[in-house]
Amino acid sequence: MKKYVDNCPFCIGNERLTPPAIKIYEDHSKPSFWKVRVIPNMFPAVLSNEEFKTNLINNYFETSIGYGSHLVIVESPFHNITLTNMKSNEMELIISSYRDMYRTLNRKRIKYIMIFKNHGESAGASIDHIHSQIITIPVISESLERRVKIASNYFKKLNTCICCDMIEKELELKERIIYRNNEFIAFHPFASIHPFEVWILPYNHKASFGNIEDEEIEEFAKILQEVIRKIDLALCQPDFNYLIETAPIGKENSNYLHWYLRIIPRIWDIGGFEIGTGIYINSCIPEKTAEYLREL
Amino acid sequence: MKKYVDNCPFCIGNERLTPPAIKIYEDHSKPSFWKVRVIPNMFPAVLSNEEFKTNLINNYFETSIGYGSHLVIVESPFHNITLTNMKSNEMELIISSYRDMYRTLNRKRIKYIMIFKNHGESAGASIDHIHSQIITIPVISESLERRVKIASNYFKKLNTCICCDMIEKELELKERIIYRNNEFIAFHPFASIHPFEVWILPYNHKASFGNIEDEEIEEFAKILQEVIRKIDLALCQPDFNYLIETAPIGKENSNYLHWYLRIIPRIWDIGGFEIGTGIYINSCIPEKTAEYLREL
Repeated sequence: MKKYVDNCPFCIGNERLTPPAIKIYEDHSKPSFWKVRVIPNMFPAVLSNEEFKTNLINNYFETSIGYGSHLVIVESPFHNITLTNMKSNEMELIISSYRDMYRTLNRKRIKYIMIFKNHGESAGASIDHIHSQIITIPVISESLERRVKIASNYFKKLNTCICCDMIEKELELKERIIYRNNEFIAFHPFASIHPFEVWILPYNHKASFGNIEDEEIEEFAKILQEVIRKIDLALCQPDFNYLIETAPIGKENSNYLHWYLRIIPRIWDIGGFEIGTGIYINSCIPEKTAEYLREL
Repeated sequence: MKKYVDNCPFCIGNERLTPPAIKIYEDHSKPSFWKVRVIPNMFPAVLSNEEFKTNLINNYFETSIGYGSHLVIVESPFHNITLTNMKSNEMELIISSYRDMYRTLNRKRIKYIMIFKNHGESAGASIDHIHSQIITIPVISESLERRVKIASNYFKKLNTCICCDMIEKELELKERIIYRNNEFIAFHPFASIHPFEVWILPYNHKASFGNIEDEEIEEFAKILQEVIRKIDLALCQPDFNYLIETAPIGKENSNYLHWYLRIIPRIWDIGGFEIGTGIYINSCIPEKTAEYLREL
């Protein structure tokens, strides 16, 4: 793949093709070069200059304004850089940029900050130059609410964090673990709904990704690169998504929520049964694929 | 496309490649020919010879046996037949076979009967010969429960069926209607989550697809073929799913549930934002795509 692509809006030199940057991480070794560039999405899903309110349309349908921010993190100036061929300090800078944005984004009326990557067309990406996105939303959706409620009910019943318990169980059983380092563990969740789905969790209980510390960033960058490298080898560089499941705004210090990153290789398309029932048929056995990934 | 494919397990003459048929709709004009063939799925997602029970694995993870039936409806003896090039009486026979199966399948410990079609690889199909599937399940999943609850709450509040009201509203507004006939209406649901998603509903309130009558089958076959024809023209024969959203077992005569069929063309892949939040970004405006489909 070429290092520069003339009409790619994310390649260095083509900055005029995007809205002005919100934040630039400069390359101090080369004047006027940058390493990571945060820009508003040119086609935002939500807008921050609207007031958040709900409306009744045709005196019947309830709607609300898509209020929030929609940013793109351009993760390299070069077109041929991937998560697996970049240096570990470059990966660290990307994670730092997520954290910076998480901490500094406008929180007014915002309930959740979603950080995610769509890599490849079948994962929803429209541009192949490496990037992630951040969308802030003014509501807790049903599926976010569900995650919070499951953890909260678990805590009420057992007085421990569900993710801390999962980590302990996975460490005891070992069969679904993909990789570990000093701060993080990567495993297939029990009865994973997607083939090869991997979760990366910090050992230390922490509800919000926004509270990740510098030492953790280093280890997180390492494990994320390592897991993607394994997935690339196992599945021939598949399209994938990753997303950070974190605490809603206001619950950042919760004792029952525990942030984690989910990686979902897009090697399989759900069908009508999954769409209709929400029950996922996964024909890959997590204990087998974990063993395979572990040994790569 | 060829009429017969040697190694296709669903082509006429290759019946030995599948488990024995559960039901055969014969072609009375040609001895030993069939028109529709219902068989057990060779790789079933659920099994009826297991007892349904829940287990605790490793003294921690809750699981249950995949109890139920998994059938395939082979909808034509020929490889080159599609929903749009078949005759209307052939389409009617397919719908009749769904109803027959719905009515006669083993209901013991079963809570829901899901009838669906995966058409094309990106819609989850592994075989391209025309077919649908039926899976019966011993649980009401969260997403089925949600649909039931929304309709039930609506009825409690307004004393009418939510789908009857939606039909009335769509008939009044007209802007999302795709097609209508004597018994059915096809429209994009308000704020459709998928581009070009179409719902087909009977005007007459009826909770269960299992209660569809002969006269309705004729009209249902017609509108389904017409909508698929329009989608094929608009989107160049895309892969698609359809599925029947019906009442759970035991609620077949509910006054608040109303069965319908959903068609979802697979022209777009969801990304990390949708996976994480359950909120869908649909960049196609239903009122525009409805106008387009209406006029085709």
